[in-house]
Amino acid sequence: MYGDYLINAQGEDVVAGIRNTQKIENLGKEMPEAYQQFMDITSTLERHYKEMQDVEFTIERGKLWMLQTRNGKRTAKAAVKIAVDMVNEGLISKEDAIQRVTTDNVDTLLHPQFDEKAKKEAEKTGKFLAKGVNASPGAAVGQAYFDADIAEKMAKEEKQSTIMVRPFTKPDDVHGMIASKGVLTSEGGATSHAAVVARQFGIPCVVGASAITVDLDKRVMTVGGIVVKEGEWISVDGTTGEVFLGKMPTVAPSIEEQTDLLTLLKWADDLSRLQVWANADYPKDAQRARAFGAKGIGLCRTEHMFFEQERLPIVQRMILAETSEARTKELDELLPFQRKDFDGLFEAMNGYPVIIRLIDPPLHEFMPDEEKLFEEVVTMRVKGETKGLAEKEKLLVDIKAMHESNPMMGLRGVRLSIVMPEIVEMQVRAMFEAAADCTLRGIVVKPEVMIPLTGTIKELEWIQPRLVRIAKAVMDEKKVNFPYKFGTMIEIPRAAVTAGEIASIAEFFSFGTNDLTQMTYGYSRDDAERNFLLKYVEAGILVKNPFQTIDRDGVGRLMKMAIDDGRKTRPSLEVGICGEHGGDPDSIEFCHMIGNNYVSCSPFRVPVARLAAAQAALKHRGITVMEDK
Amino acid sequence: MYGDYLINAQGEDVVAGIRNTQKIENLGKEMPEAYQQFMDITSTLERHYKEMQDVEFTIERGKLWMLQTRNGKRTAKAAVKIAVDMVNEGLISKEDAIQRVTTDNVDTLLHPQFDEKAKKEAEKTGKFLAKGVNASPGAAVGQAYFDADIAEKMAKEEKQSTIMVRPFTKPDDVHGMIASKGVLTSEGGATSHAAVVARQFGIPCVVGASAITVDLDKRVMTVGGIVVKEGEWISVDGTTGEVFLGKMPTVAPSIEEQTDLLTLLKWADDLSRLQVWANADYPKDAQRARAFGAKGIGLCRTEHMFFEQERLPIVQRMILAETSEARTKELDELLPFQRKDFDGLFEAMNGYPVIIRLIDPPLHEFMPDEEKLFEEVVTMRVKGETKGLAEKEKLLVDIKAMHESNPMMGLRGVRLSIVMPEIVEMQVRAMFEAAADCTLRGIVVKPEVMIPLTGTIKELEWIQPRLVRIAKAVMDEKKVNFPYKFGTMIEIPRAAVTAGEIASIAEFFSFGTNDLTQMTYGYSRDDAERNFLLKYVEAGILVKNPFQTIDRDGVGRLMKMAIDDGRKTRPSLEVGICGEHGGDPDSIEFCHMIGNNYVSCSPFRVPVARLAAAQAALKHRGITVMEDK
Repeated sequence: MYGDYLINAQGEDVVAGIRNTQKIENLGKEMPEAYQQFMDITSTLERHYKEMQDVEFTIERGKLWMLQTRNGKRTAKAAVKIAVDMVNEGLISKEDAIQRVTTDNVDTLLHPQFDEKAKKEAEKTGKFLAKGVNASPGAAVGQAYFDADIAEKMAKEEKQSTIMVRPFTKPDDVHGMIASKGVLTSEGGATSHAAVVARQFGIPCVVGASAITVDLDKRVMTVGGIVVKEGEWISVDGTTGEVFLGKMPTVAPSIEEQTDLLTLLKWADDLSRLQVWANADYPKDAQRARAFGAKGIGLCRTEHMFFEQERLPIVQRMILAETSEARTKELDELLPFQRKDFDGLFEAMNGYPVIIRLIDPPLHEFMPDEEKLFEEVVTMRVKGETKGLAEKEKLLVDIKAMHESNPMMGLRGVRLSIVMPEIVEMQVRAMFEAAADCTLRGIVVKPEVMIPLTGTIKELEWIQPRLVRIAKAVMDEKKVNFPYKFGTMIEIPRAAVTAGEIASIAEFFSFGTNDLTQMTYGYSRDDAERNFLLKYVEAGILVKNPFQTIDRDGVGRLMKMAIDDGRKTRPSLEVGICGEHGGDPDSIEFCHMIGNNYVSCSPFRVPVARLAAAQAALKHRGITVMEDK
Repeated sequence: MYGDYLINAQGEDVVAGIRNTQKIENLGKEMPEAYQQFMDITSTLERHYKEMQDVEFTIERGKLWMLQTRNGKRTAKAAVKIAVDMVNEGLISKEDAIQRVTTDNVDTLLHPQFDEKAKKEAEKTGKFLAKGVNASPGAAVGQAYFDADIAEKMAKEEKQSTIMVRPFTKPDDVHGMIASKGVLTSEGGATSHAAVVARQFGIPCVVGASAITVDLDKRVMTVGGIVVKEGEWISVDGTTGEVFLGKMPTVAPSIEEQTDLLTLLKWADDLSRLQVWANADYPKDAQRARAFGAKGIGLCRTEHMFFEQERLPIVQRMILAETSEARTKELDELLPFQRKDFDGLFEAMNGYPVIIRLIDPPLHEFMPDEEKLFEEVVTMRVKGETKGLAEKEKLLVDIKAMHESNPMMGLRGVRLSIVMPEIVEMQVRAMFEAAADCTLRGIVVKPEVMIPLTGTIKELEWIQPRLVRIAKAVMDEKKVNFPYKFGTMIEIPRAAVTAGEIASIAEFFSFGTNDLTQMTYGYSRDDAERNFLLKYVEAGILVKNPFQTIDRDGVGRLMKMAIDDGRKTRPSLEVGICGEHGGDPDSIEFCHMIGNNYVSCSPFRVPVARLAAAQAALKHRGITVMEDK
């Protein structure tokens, strides 16, 4: 007797997603009549439901009884393969195939995974440590380090695979995170700093693993009775949120080898109205983005380049400079670094547009930690130590002067560029010098300069002409010409409300939906997640976390207003989105509905976004842009 | 020969605003013919221009020559008197009178001023120091500081009244100016940095008092032989430009004695569509508001009551309570205090609506200063002091846990009420117990409960029914019944965007234009004013400070959307505004245009607002509500 098989018409055991013709052959040999009957029935069922069937059957005394049929569950790989096969066999259309594969399927196919058997084994042998929030998918194995500098050093100099472990992370931990294979925090939620950065860089990450206690002084983490010291191996599963002791074997898929997926995504692109671009700060991210099918860079964050170890001291001196001349001197030192960064980006994206955002964060993010410095100063004072005290005190005063009550709404973005234009002037020069050099090397460049945090057209009127003059000057100096654009982020509610005006000078809009969500809701992201966002989601006050999925009624209504008003002023206005929502299928659908030209997301999300864009186009076939309520 | 007189048809010397019939009589006696001719001509001119005339004339050899005539300048008091007189004489209509008096006139009549007798006394006793340019009106008394940081520190941390004294000011002095009651400079004119900033922020200011020498190193100012050291009291009259040594008593002019003004404002009320309410936290404010003509309380901030000395320790224990029971115990202690506060308010506003806002600020505002405590702890640790250390360390941990990166967008308002409902449950009980007690004493109460910081209707759906149950329970217990409302502030951009939904549960809207401006612009007010707002105003990026005058294109567009959508859902929706804009004439005009029912402002601004409301009604006569662009 055979029962509870899950078989499709091709005779594949699709739960495992691998051919298991042996089993079917056995059935064929033992009971040829029932076998033939079974193959006919399942084939009929599949043609009827146009979907692979999960059938239950039994054969009693040679007679086949079909007990149940339903659309089959399957692995991601099987789902893609079946859809593509069915198109090739003429069973379904390409459109059907696009609609049958889920974005989760695609996501799963692109992240390294732990071997399932090994995981079960680990649980049995007590190597399972904790479960936290699955913040950024993928499997990572590495040696644990509790400090960004050490993690980076071990990764770069000792060529170790490292996992950075912290209670939580901050911007000055990013270099350690990027250098690591994975990130683990004991605090924080799905939109904590660690989670956001990790997703951005496609680094597997588990946050809020609260069973773990991290002792930064002793450089250990403890879970129950287990103590993990610095340098010990751990394994982090960002897809499931699990953390294991030791080295867990992984399986890493490569997109080039996944020919079915490549075929499906090619069909998806043909059906989409939305393009998919990627957020990439470094040339290697851009290369990956391109391999994953991105048609442009929607966001390059230039300030990440400022945090790099050799540059940060120059950046700090530049910030503390007391005259414009002194500041310019430091910026002159930074210029070659930035030019090199941009050069690599343009080269990687040959032929495609590259949107580079001018410096955005408040300057105090680049400075040493105020509290730590304060503690040092107080300690030295109490102990009566004087050596170096005056210097530290001066630095403390300078840092304190930069302190802001609500830095998220403080001196940053275009506001900083107006108060201190030297920085962005250097950036634009670096960008256009790189673009000119690339052009001379035969590379096709399409630079787009993005001004962040605009709230009123007057800000653009003040800064943009100055920058355009620099762009033109560089092209004259280098005797080259290439197309370029100047545009702005729409991330301040007022920018969305007055977009009709702003579009008279901005040539493109890019929705910064992270900040736009923060300010439209009045939720400071980190504070909210820690304090009430979870409670809100639990109590049903928020159906979804608005930092993950665009809030259509609130934030979305402002976005739609901005596009409608903006295109009234400038019909050719290019509109994109570069917040994290750019990789979220529900948000991508909404971007399609309101008439975006593209979404931009982290490179690893590009394939998911390509599928989502096609699904949105199919769902809203024949509708140009959604109507107002 | 007579010349350059300033005389109106009533024979008053109107520059001083006082009768000077003696002069006119002299003219009449000496040259009766020219006198009669002069009186006829000036009377004709006034009838023609419908405005008091400032005439220049000469009489040569008995012949009258009229040299020039123009509308006369006059004091605020004269302006009001003339307008009322001209109505009474049938020369102009009440509407004309309303349009001829400026809101600045009314403002001047009500601003606290130095007592005239005390000023004369000061001159006699050598306390008059200097006279400079009257750069920004108002009287200020405070302790002199010669450095912005110290002035700010003394004002914020030591709660001193401070006057910032400098030779001149620069942008990095602004934080000290804003924190101070007044500003004094020895250099500069009416358009100097100090003058512009002071006017911008409504801070009394005298500039260019050149008799004063400011020695920044020694931290003293000297005038003749008098030396004023840091911390000494001085008095600055920004209306007249005078500076005095010591604390000069101020008088708030009594409105009751200004019968012409009362008459004019009565006419204003009859012509207005907007009512004027007042923001008042204490019964004495409510009484003043009522005397000034307020028709309701638009905002009572209940948390001010929490800061009072005897209550703060209870509030702190309540915040640190680890169980709901422990918290409720402390709240039970606070309840009688709150009930008493509310009782006084209802009694003062007998017959008028009183809107009470539930607790709004983040809880850390009620706790001791984190940095100070941290310094104490570090000092004790270094010194090896253990007594009381553990306790301080525990408190520090608790306060640190409350720390937020951007508290303005953090755990406060309705978010706090949802996470910790015990506080607002106590507040609503206190409010309704007080209202019931007042009703039993024959007072007519109209309580309106205002929920702050709403961003989604779901928040109201969660909290409002709980509070309504308490309200009803109290009325049952006390066996009384009175009308009441539950409504919300509209201060989060998302609330404005989704107001149509929110109005299905909220019975009234009150625009919190301070926060709405902060979040719509993404300007943290304190940070922005210190860091870039002034630069923006100077550079013409902002035409007006949006925290003083409603930004019609951005914030205003959201307000109009909210009213339009809200009234579609609930045509009877009561709409007001309780931000500081409620006292600004330009903003009041806008509130009239978009269909507000009332504006609410500080008691002293009520007369100004009453006039502005009438002027708006006259300017937009015949228009119900402004059209969309």
